[in-house]
Amino acid sequence: MSTPFANFQYGIYLNGATQGLRPSHPMAWDALEREATDRMAPGPRGYVNGGSGTEDTMRANLDAFKRHRIVPRMLRDVETRSLERTVLGTTMPAPLLIAPVGVQSIVHPDGELAVARAAASTGIPMIASTASSFTMEAIAEAGAQGPRWYQLYWPRGRDLARSLVQRAEAAGYEAIVVTLDTWLLGWRPRDLQEAYLPFLESVGIANYLSDPVFRSTLETSPEEDPMAAVGQFVGVFSNPSVTWEDLSFLRECTSLPIILKGVLHADDAREAAARGMDGIIVSNHGGRQVDGAIAALDALPAVVDAVGADICVLFDSGVRCGADAFKALALGARAVCIGRPAMWGLAVGGEEGVRTVLQCLLAELDLTLALSGLSHVDQIDRSALTLAP
Amino acid sequence: MSTPFANFQYGIYLNGATQGLRPSHPMAWDALEREATDRMAPGPRGYVNGGSGTEDTMRANLDAFKRHRIVPRMLRDVETRSLERTVLGTTMPAPLLIAPVGVQSIVHPDGELAVARAAASTGIPMIASTASSFTMEAIAEAGAQGPRWYQLYWPRGRDLARSLVQRAEAAGYEAIVVTLDTWLLGWRPRDLQEAYLPFLESVGIANYLSDPVFRSTLETSPEEDPMAAVGQFVGVFSNPSVTWEDLSFLRECTSLPIILKGVLHADDAREAAARGMDGIIVSNHGGRQVDGAIAALDALPAVVDAVGADICVLFDSGVRCGADAFKALALGARAVCIGRPAMWGLAVGGEEGVRTVLQCLLAELDLTLALSGLSHVDQIDRSALTLAP
Amino acid sequence: MSTPFANFQYGIYLNGATQGLRPSHPMAWDALEREATDRMAPGPRGYVNGGSGTEDTMRANLDAFKRHRIVPRMLRDVETRSLERTVLGTTMPAPLLIAPVGVQSIVHPDGELAVARAAASTGIPMIASTASSFTMEAIAEAGAQGPRWYQLYWPRGRDLARSLVQRAEAAGYEAIVVTLDTWLLGWRPRDLQEAYLPFLESVGIANYLSDPVFRSTLETSPEEDPMAAVGQFVGVFSNPSVTWEDLSFLRECTSLPIILKGVLHADDAREAAARGMDGIIVSNHGGRQVDGAIAALDALPAVVDAVGADICVLFDSGVRCGADAFKALALGARAVCIGRPAMWGLAVGGEEGVRTVLQCLLAELDLTLALSGLSHVDQIDRSALTLAP
Amino acid sequence: MSTPFANFQYGIYLNGATQGLRPSHPMAWDALEREATDRMAPGPRGYVNGGSGTEDTMRANLDAFKRHRIVPRMLRDVETRSLERTVLGTTMPAPLLIAPVGVQSIVHPDGELAVARAAASTGIPMIASTASSFTMEAIAEAGAQGPRWYQLYWPRGRDLARSLVQRAEAAGYEAIVVTLDTWLLGWRPRDLQEAYLPFLESVGIANYLSDPVFRSTLETSPEEDPMAAVGQFVGVFSNPSVTWEDLSFLRECTSLPIILKGVLHADDAREAAARGMDGIIVSNHGGRQVDGAIAALDALPAVVDAVGADICVLFDSGVRCGADAFKALALGARAVCIGRPAMWGLAVGGEEGVRTVLQCLLAELDLTLALSGLSHVDQIDRSALTLAP
Repeated sequence: MSTPFANFQYGIYLNGATQGLRPSHPMAWDALEREATDRMAPGPRGYVNGGSGTEDTMRANLDAFKRHRIVPRMLRDVETRSLERTVLGTTMPAPLLIAPVGVQSIVHPDGELAVARAAASTGIPMIASTASSFTMEAIAEAGAQGPRWYQLYWPRGRDLARSLVQRAEAAGYEAIVVTLDTWLLGWRPRDLQEAYLPFLESVGIANYLSDPVFRSTLETSPEEDPMAAVGQFVGVFSNPSVTWEDLSFLRECTSLPIILKGVLHADDAREAAARGMDGIIVSNHGGRQVDGAIAALDALPAVVDAVGADICVLFDSGVRCGADAFKALALGARAVCIGRPAMWGLAVGGEEGVRTVLQCLLAELDLTLALSGLSHVDQIDRSALTLAP
Repeated sequence: MSTPFANFQYGIYLNGATQGLRPSHPMAWDALEREATDRMAPGPRGYVNGGSGTEDTMRANLDAFKRHRIVPRMLRDVETRSLERTVLGTTMPAPLLIAPVGVQSIVHPDGELAVARAAASTGIPMIASTASSFTMEAIAEAGAQGPRWYQLYWPRGRDLARSLVQRAEAAGYEAIVVTLDTWLLGWRPRDLQEAYLPFLESVGIANYLSDPVFRSTLETSPEEDPMAAVGQFVGVFSNPSVTWEDLSFLRECTSLPIILKGVLHADDAREAAARGMDGIIVSNHGGRQVDGAIAALDALPAVVDAVGADICVLFDSGVRCGADAFKALALGARAVCIGRPAMWGLAVGGEEGVRTVLQCLLAELDLTLALSGLSHVDQIDRSALTLAP
Repeated sequence: MSTPFANFQYGIYLNGATQGLRPSHPMAWDALEREATDRMAPGPRGYVNGGSGTEDTMRANLDAFKRHRIVPRMLRDVETRSLERTVLGTTMPAPLLIAPVGVQSIVHPDGELAVARAAASTGIPMIASTASSFTMEAIAEAGAQGPRWYQLYWPRGRDLARSLVQRAEAAGYEAIVVTLDTWLLGWRPRDLQEAYLPFLESVGIANYLSDPVFRSTLETSPEEDPMAAVGQFVGVFSNPSVTWEDLSFLRECTSLPIILKGVLHADDAREAAARGMDGIIVSNHGGRQVDGAIAALDALPAVVDAVGADICVLFDSGVRCGADAFKALALGARAVCIGRPAMWGLAVGGEEGVRTVLQCLLAELDLTLALSGLSHVDQIDRSALTLAP
Repeated sequence: MSTPFANFQYGIYLNGATQGLRPSHPMAWDALEREATDRMAPGPRGYVNGGSGTEDTMRANLDAFKRHRIVPRMLRDVETRSLERTVLGTTMPAPLLIAPVGVQSIVHPDGELAVARAAASTGIPMIASTASSFTMEAIAEAGAQGPRWYQLYWPRGRDLARSLVQRAEAAGYEAIVVTLDTWLLGWRPRDLQEAYLPFLESVGIANYLSDPVFRSTLETSPEEDPMAAVGQFVGVFSNPSVTWEDLSFLRECTSLPIILKGVLHADDAREAAARGMDGIIVSNHGGRQVDGAIAALDALPAVVDAVGADICVLFDSGVRCGADAFKALALGARAVCIGRPAMWGLAVGGEEGVRTVLQCLLAELDLTLALSGLSHVDQIDRSALTLAP
């Protein structure tokens, strides 16, 4: 085997056979979710695991994968394989990214720093959230060995937006991911029941508190009057008046690729392409925004058909295992984002937990590729799938 | 945000962050149902929660919503939004009504009075049932600040029917909702097991006992001989011989709009329009009448296609959350009726419980609208939906 | 209401309101099944409740009803109603029959006698099984006031077959139902686990032990040597060599109508019609013979389309409530057979239990008819249904 | 009855009636699985019962059978029946084989020897795995009375591959089954959690340790240095570079029929035929290799349509009962392989447990045939099935 990914499983077996060691991390995805859920406090547990409303869309995201079945091919030489993928001109070791997730320190004290280190050690890009619990500069430093993207919650006030983007550029982030589907927070009963919004406790506003433009709008420094800073944050964070026209401003702010996250309709994908965006992420925010929304995977093929030839189409929402990643790639995603599984790994074992999650995903994707008769991820296309009857 | 509805969630979060307060009312719809169910005595619990027969239609009502998925659109200015809806010439703050439910005092001693007050405080019309546990005049007084409709169980004896309608008109009710699907009570095993029919215990016949025409048919006053009054009620309540021809009589009794509740077939909707009715409510009585009947939502599109341009089409049966309301509106309902959730709110917290339920529904609907890229409920149409694969 | 059927529920409510009485019999079908299951010993429980193999067809029989939805019509005069149905020239009070079930005394000591009495008191025909635990003459005497049909397990030996049929004719049975699907016993794991086949313990061979032809084949009387009689029974009971050609012999034995039970394929239905049979029963033996077989209801429409105009098509397998009966009638059955629910009633309360089950079914069917806008069972046709989406 | 298979159930009933004996072996397939699962230690339990990834394909294998329904035909003479099937020129007593399963001694100390004896006593061919815990010669001796096939995990090194095949030929194996879908081990979370790979503990490499070619590659004998032998085994076992071209080498090694196991795509089936293979087995390795793969039964019809007329098409993956076998045969399989049920029988009762499983399967298949109106397995075709609606 030329790639190391699938070897991960043999290492586990060898440890078992020679030293009696069993893995300390859950190996099954449902066991990972259970153990992480047990370890999180009620507030974080609801925030990470929950969805909006009845959580119907959250479940639909997972069910959608069951409708596509892989048809493996036999007797092709798959000894030498590659998961390498070029995304926006950069070669990545695999078509995976860590999805932007805010306030990660509610799950583990090392939060985004642990995730950044784990990501860097595998070469998988991390998309750091505007709402992270450490500054984007600190995260960049932690993951200095690896690639990183920056996710923008576009705030009220163009100066502030520009400042965030330019800081990201300065800190070595290689792309700007603009989240389109969260100008307002979705209706999330688990968080409401706990009256839990970590941003209001200053967690997740590190990028604001460290921002010169944001600080210049405060009458007193956040160190002196934290609640006033939170109040100001609340005032600028939500910005539901942004429209397609505003994207030209963002384009002028940065030379980095701009990727729009949260596209579900082919016409919005076309508009993104027409506006000169570099990419889109098909996503419904993990079922956390519009309850009742279309499953993200169900939205993917029409979007790919509409713009797949023109701009980079990534996928997010519902990937839980290597087979899911394979299916999203086969339906046309250039890469897929991993959200909750990474958070569960973080909850279970900090940096090491995240790394194990990534290694499992990579190994399973590598094996799915090989056992499907393919030797390079670029060979994965719709012909590898059939619809379940 | 111009509308106050979505702000409701931020109030909860702020209470949590600043005062450590968590909401006293369940925030998730399934938790509301569970808590209300725990609080109700066996008889009322079966009456409110139960359906007819195997409760297959009751379940089908809920499942039908899962077959429609919302496809949100991005980057449209949704800062200023409106849920206002004109129904039968009157502007309502939102396309919601409280469905007619009888004998509400079995759930909470304040019964319909609490619901009327909660409804009036939000501007959502309450549809008061003929079988209410308080007189229609008392309910009107309790909800004097808000709009109200009257639901008629058309009794045997035209004089009695006319009397009820004219009392409603005098008490300021703005529309008459005639229930078509309950000339006979459905087969309801939960009630049968408890041998529980609250009407036979005088609960729910307040409108009869206070009616001069009804009283004139009694040999002794109901105060002297309550069981005789109940017996007389039983004799006139059920009236399965009413036909389309009889509607002209009702039309002559009142100048109020007449809305027929319980239409499931497009031909019946056409007949209602041809007979000059003002509206219909697509409903299967919450799965409480014909077990095995079509899910109400599945009946809606054909009815809208048949008469949506001619008369007002409302929807009832199965709405449990804001996303459900959005989907029914998208399929063509001008407004939707809320039944069991309001009763659960009443069971959990009386007037305040009902108000919280309405606020949650309004907030979730407002957010669903905004996050779907729409700024006015009148923009919601079938293009916002796709069928689940 | 002209029919008494729906009144049954008002009686229960009145008992509750005036005397505090609750029904002693379970009112919900699932509660009936649970209570009966609790009361039966392991052997009978497996025999009555079980199906063949994985019980997949047993479940499919029930699921099939969910695919058809009733579309009720409104504002039709349904005050006067009738469930009366003419079947094979005889008018029955309702389109129901009690399905043939063997060895009923394993469920309750009164067995078939209790069922016969309950059936006679409602006018619903009972189909007495060849494998009944009382002789057909005793059953006929118990149900002398009501109609009765005889079910034939066609044994080896034409003399014995003729004897059974002619005894039935003499005892006043009005039709002969020939079971086609049980020449061999299906693979029934519950019975195998208990090693329970009640016939081998003489239960269910009463009709053989009392038959002169059968007795003439024994060397010693069954009173002297019961196991020899059982052995002889086993030798003649199974007769898988019977073919369509043999039906002419049966036709010559009796002038009673002959109905073939167990037809699932339209071509077999056509063959039955071509051979001059009077009727067929679409049935898969309640999921007790071929595991994996088509649900009986799914087989009904094609059979009705093929021969419904020519011969009487009855339905069996899966009817659990009034709505199920309505749907089978709407798909073209002239009447439906009630199997397990009657046995559960027998287990719960003997004769009274069976009567209650029949009264509940009749009341629910009457209400389903009325609330669907129909006043006579003959008006029930496919236009009353729509397919679930 | 001319075949003894269905008689098996009467024997059980007779034992119950005359001696009060109940079967010591679970009669229901789900009970067999439960009891076997209880008896196995955690490692073997995960190895036998588990699948790859989320076990979605393992479940899909079972669900696929539910979509096909048998339509039994009536009144055909089925007294004399035959399950005999000619496969690759040899007549087998029934269209069943025992699927190749490795390391069977982890389930029961007698392992493959017990299975071989049970198989031989019924005449059902056993397919012995390369990874068996006894040598192929020992297995052949144990099952000397019955037919046997050999399954080849094609190792690195043509000399070793040729040696294994020629030993099989010498030991009287009648066909070579080459597994195509396991050049790499799938991602199996249950095994990973236990760090359990029995091969690394020498179980399952008996055929290697006894092979002169393999031994010649070792510097020290396996008796002296077992771990070195395991290491060498690991190095040669996995051979993902084998392609269609390499099959000609195998063809030259042996005159036995060659059957390719693991085909799921019709084009691969065509390639197998074009390359002169004698047969294929449609299989996804029981859902143990590619999680998310198409259910094996869903892949069968297209493969049969493509090559059914040209080469022998067998079926494996998901058969749990006689009805499943019937359906796979009806969709065109010439015979079906039994995997986990045989292992469960082994776990529950060693040789006798396996024999009981086979007897139950044969009896249920015989009854399904008869009760469907057929008297020979060769009459089973697609006309016996209909799709579930």
